[in-house]
Amino acid sequence: MIPGDGIGREVVAQGLKVLSAVLPSDVKLETEEYDLGARRYHATGEILPDAELESLKGHDAILLGAIGDPSVPAGVLERGLLLKLRFAFDHYVNLRPSKLFPHTATPLAGRPDIDFVVVREGTEGPYTGNGGSLRTGTPAEVATEVSVNTALGVERVVRDAYERAQARPRKKLTLVHKNNVLVYAGQLWKSVFDRVGREYPEVTTDYLHVDAATIFLVTRPEQFDVIVTDNLFGDILTDLAAAVTGGIGLAASGNINPDGAFPSMFEPVHGSAPDIAGTGKADPTATVLSVALLLRHLGYEAEAARIEAAVADDLAERDGAAPRSTDETGDALARRVAG
Amino acid sequence: MIPGDGIGREVVAQGLKVLSAVLPSDVKLETEEYDLGARRYHATGEILPDAELESLKGHDAILLGAIGDPSVPAGVLERGLLLKLRFAFDHYVNLRPSKLFPHTATPLAGRPDIDFVVVREGTEGPYTGNGGSLRTGTPAEVATEVSVNTALGVERVVRDAYERAQARPRKKLTLVHKNNVLVYAGQLWKSVFDRVGREYPEVTTDYLHVDAATIFLVTRPEQFDVIVTDNLFGDILTDLAAAVTGGIGLAASGNINPDGAFPSMFEPVHGSAPDIAGTGKADPTATVLSVALLLRHLGYEAEAARIEAAVADDLAERDGAAPRSTDETGDALARRVAG
Ligand SMILES: CC(C)[C@H](C(=O)O)[C@@H](O)C(=O)O
Ligand SMILES: CC(C)[C@H](C(=O)O)[C@@H](O)C(=O)O
Repeated sequence: MIPGDGIGREVVAQGLKVLSAVLPSDVKLETEEYDLGARRYHATGEILPDAELESLKGHDAILLGAIGDPSVPAGVLERGLLLKLRFAFDHYVNLRPSKLFPHTATPLAGRPDIDFVVVREGTEGPYTGNGGSLRTGTPAEVATEVSVNTALGVERVVRDAYERAQARPRKKLTLVHKNNVLVYAGQLWKSVFDRVGREYPEVTTDYLHVDAATIFLVTRPEQFDVIVTDNLFGDILTDLAAAVTGGIGLAASGNINPDGAFPSMFEPVHGSAPDIAGTGKADPTATVLSVALLLRHLGYEAEAARIEAAVADDLAERDGAAPRSTDETGDALARRVAG
Repeated sequence: MIPGDGIGREVVAQGLKVLSAVLPSDVKLETEEYDLGARRYHATGEILPDAELESLKGHDAILLGAIGDPSVPAGVLERGLLLKLRFAFDHYVNLRPSKLFPHTATPLAGRPDIDFVVVREGTEGPYTGNGGSLRTGTPAEVATEVSVNTALGVERVVRDAYERAQARPRKKLTLVHKNNVLVYAGQLWKSVFDRVGREYPEVTTDYLHVDAATIFLVTRPEQFDVIVTDNLFGDILTDLAAAVTGGIGLAASGNINPDGAFPSMFEPVHGSAPDIAGTGKADPTATVLSVALLLRHLGYEAEAARIEAAVADDLAERDGAAPRSTDETGDALARRVAG
C-alpha cells in the first residue's frame, strides 16, 4: 500500500477494509505500507529510494491512493514517484473501466447506457520525460516535450486491447489518436492497429481523432466498448469518461504489467484533492473498485464481482440519502461484501 | 474563400450569402475563390502552391470551409494546407468562443449557463511537424513527435488572452496545461502566465490540468470565462466545448494574426464531414458565426453583432421545427441580417 498524499490515505484505508472483508478466511492477506509522497519528501528529501522500489517488487500487487501536493513543485512527485513506478514496473496497460451505475448522478441528460473500458498505454508517449528547456527563464527560451512511441510498446498494448474486446459481448475496439497532425506517431499506431486487427476478425474496429472522441463521449457514449489510445490521450479521455459516469469518485484504474514480471498497481483515477483532505468527504468507492480490479488481476474473480455488486447496491442505497463520510461508505461496503 | 472539402463548399456558400447581406451598401465586397483541397490534390498533385500562398496574402481575410478527405492519406491536406496557412500567416491566436444559445440542444442536464472563449495557441506545440520515424514499418520502429514551445510564442498568446479577459465582465482567465507531466513546456507556460498576469491585476486567474479541465467542461462549464492553452489541448477542449454548447454545427473559430502582418482566417470548428457532404444536411451556422468573427476582426462590430443576434433568433425559430437544409438556413439568416 502506498497511501500517498491528501485523501489518498483516507481512501486506501477503506480499500483495505473492504479487501480484508471480501477475502475467504483461508487466504492470508499480508500488507506493507510504504510512506511515500509529500510528507516524506519534505521530511527527508526522498521521493522513491531504490531500496523501496526493490522491496515493492516483492509484492503481488500495489494499492495506491493518490500522489501530489501543492506544497511540492508540479511534477516532482508525479514524475519521481507515480510515473516512476508505472515505468519501472512496465505497467504498459493502464486499464480504466467506465460504467454508469444506476442511481448515480451524471451531467448528461437522458442517462445514456455507458459501459466501456479504456486501455491507455502506460509507458510511452509524451510521458517519457523526454524534453528539455534551453535559455530557461529568458525571452529566448525554447521548451520541448518529446512523445516517444515504439512498435514494441504500441503493439503490446494494442494486442491487449484486442484481447479485451474479443472477450466482451459487443467486441468493438476504437483507436483514438490524432493521426492527421501527429503523423509519425499516428502512422505507427494506425498501422499496428490495422495489422494486429487481422488476427481478430470478430472484433469490429474504428478510428477517431481525439478531439472528435471527446464529442462522442458526451453525445453518444453508449457507442464505445473498448478504446485503446496513447498515454496522454488516455489520461484526458478517462477523466472525461469518469465525469460522465458518475464522477471521479467512482473511477477505478489498474496499472497492469500483463507479463507478470512486476507487480501491477491499482489506484483511483482521482488525485489527492488537498482541498477536502481530512474532512471525511472523499468517496472511497473508486479505491474500492480499484481493489476489485486488483482481485480480478490476481485471479479472485468471484471476490471482484462481489465488490462490484456491493458498490452497485450501495449506490442505490445512497441515492437521495444524506451524504456519508469516507469511513461510513467504507464500512457499508465492507459489510456488504462480507455478508 | 477556401471552401475546401466535403461540406466545406456548402457552408462557405452560405457564409458568403450572409456576409453579402449584412454589409452596408457602401462597402464593396471583393471575393476570390481558391480551389484547394482533395479535388485539386487528386487532379494536379498540388496542395498549396507558393504562388497561391503569396496571392492569399493580398486579402483582408480568409473564409475557410473544411479541409480533409478520406481519399487522401491522413495529414497530407491537414498539414500541407490548413496548418501550413496557420503557420505561414502566423495565426498565433486561435479564437474559439463557446456559448450555449437558448433553444439549442445540449447533452448536459440542467442546461448550464455557458459563455466562455478559448484562446488556443496556433503556431507551436505538438503541431510543428517536428517528429520522425526510425526503422519505419519494422518491429523496431521508433516514432517521435516533438512539442516545441517558445517564450515568444507563449507570451504573445497569453498576453492576448489577458487582454480578452480584461475586456469581459467576469475578467477571469484559466490556464490549461499538464505541467505535472510535461514539466518543461508546463513550466514555461506557467511562468509566463504568472509573470504577464502581474500586469493585469484585475484579472482573476487559475490553473487546471487538461484532464481536470475536461471534467469541469461537463460538470461546471459556467465557471469558465477565458481559457488559454496550447495548440493540442486547445484542439481537444474546443471540440468538447462545442459538444456541450449545441454541437459542432454552431462552433465558430478565428485563426488570428493580431499583428495584422498577414490575413486572419475564419473557419467553422467542424471538419469536412464527407458522410453528409452533398445531402444538404450540413448546418452552415458555424460558418456564419465565423463570418461574424471575421467582421469583428476587420472592425465591423455592428455587423458582427447583427449576425450573432440573427443566429440567436433563428435558433429560437428552428426549435421544434422540421429540419431545414443548408441552403434554407443560409437564406433565413441572410434575410434576418438584411432586414
Ligand atoms: C497525476 C498524474 C501524473 C496522472 C497522469 O497524468 O497519469 C493522473 O492524472 C492519472 O490519470 O493517473
Ligand atoms: C483538421 C485538424 C488539423 C484541425 C486541428 O487539429 O487543428 C481541426 O481539428 C481543428 O480543430 O481546426
